[in-house]
Amino acid sequence: MKRLKLTVAYDGTNYCGWQIQPNGITVEEVLNRALRKLTGEEITVIGASRTDSGVHALGNVAVFDSETSIPPERISYALNQRLPDDIVVIRSEEVSADWHPRYCNSKKTYEYHILNAKIPDPTRRLTRYFVSFDLDIEKMKKAAQYLVGTHDFVSFCNVRTDVEDTVRTIYSLDILPVGDEITIRIQGNGFLYNMVRIIVGTLVRVGRGFYTPEQVQEILEAKNRKAAGVTAPPQGLFLVGIEYEE
Amino acid sequence: MKRLKLTVAYDGTNYCGWQIQPNGITVEEVLNRALRKLTGEEITVIGASRTDSGVHALGNVAVFDSETSIPPERISYALNQRLPDDIVVIRSEEVSADWHPRYCNSKKTYEYHILNAKIPDPTRRLTRYFVSFDLDIEKMKKAAQYLVGTHDFVSFCNVRTDVEDTVRTIYSLDILPVGDEITIRIQGNGFLYNMVRIIVGTLVRVGRGFYTPEQVQEILEAKNRKAAGVTAPPQGLFLVGIEYEE
Repeated sequence: MKRLKLTVAYDGTNYCGWQIQPNGITVEEVLNRALRKLTGEEITVIGASRTDSGVHALGNVAVFDSETSIPPERISYALNQRLPDDIVVIRSEEVSADWHPRYCNSKKTYEYHILNAKIPDPTRRLTRYFVSFDLDIEKMKKAAQYLVGTHDFVSFCNVRTDVEDTVRTIYSLDILPVGDEITIRIQGNGFLYNMVRIIVGTLVRVGRGFYTPEQVQEILEAKNRKAAGVTAPPQGLFLVGIEYEE
Repeated sequence: MKRLKLTVAYDGTNYCGWQIQPNGITVEEVLNRALRKLTGEEITVIGASRTDSGVHALGNVAVFDSETSIPPERISYALNQRLPDDIVVIRSEEVSADWHPRYCNSKKTYEYHILNAKIPDPTRRLTRYFVSFDLDIEKMKKAAQYLVGTHDFVSFCNVRTDVEDTVRTIYSLDILPVGDEITIRIQGNGFLYNMVRIIVGTLVRVGRGFYTPEQVQEILEAKNRKAAGVTAPPQGLFLVGIEYEE
């Protein structure tokens, strides 16, 4: 038995997110089905990040155990023959039998893409958040700095039933304007439910002048979801990659 | 009766191109339907450019005649309420009664986007042509210069039944690498059927080293479609805009 790690990219538009659920097709389900066809085994992958419906990934990670004789690095190629065009396994490799994508120390990188223009662009509607208002980039950059570091991010977490530790560390949070787009790039050791999208929604409110940059500090201290901005829509969010400590 | 001009952006992914045809839904058809609902008149638009299936537009142009009392500049807003998300009317205005989007002198701008990377990106599969081979940008730039100017572009035209003048003028043809993408931007007074996509297919072959830049001159002189490269796929192509002479 081998434990195999997959690095997976997907366009989340047509999926009800990563995790299997009764009401629609998910990325996990499509991966399981392709792996079962390929190996003849009853495989169920374990994913690193359960992205929401409409959220994209350039490098999500999944593992599974298998007796397959296919060389580990060839599995990506064989799987891609059996996957739809909107899911691509970009790498496959063997890992140690106890390696788990969620219990390892890791650095996750997300990017959130905003189209900041006067006119919407239908060719980018599934991958960008369209904001027609002027945004003050300098204020957004200043506000972002209050979020870098180790904080209780409970104000930036949508309520879910799980009781859990809401302290996380953000290593970097950059606001990168290029042409008519603004990319918000965020790296951290983990993210709460909807945390990146609530951070983006809050930074957009700072950019529009509804909050001062300094108020982001108050939002953190309020420890109340209602203090922060709205959850930005899913289609602008990309899980860029996950780096694991050796 | 007024003649009204629409500037239309669309994601061509889910359409069988612009022009009405029996086998699938087209952009023209959806526009006609929305206009008929809005005005109660039997409107049929005339488009400037009959883009192919899968090709996108940021600024195609259409005209129609109507008795509507809606102010011309408000029609775009009213139409967008009745159009699906993948078609957006970005401007509406009144033009003179004899204005025709195909019989006026115009400058058309197209962009073709290549993703030039080792790994495919499913989030860009519907808007980029994925080329995993190394491309020599300098050679592509040199080759492009042979195409600028007034030439008989019959070697860059896929065969259709219409007999027509195949001389066109290309004002500029730029190869613009940015990050992992290459944008080919082309401006001209008109384009033959599939001309931009055959130019791109040919330039990619130059970039891969199959043709020298100088051979592009020979391809022009051959006046034979078989001399040029393959037709690049539709999803990389964007009709950026059409400027009309006053």
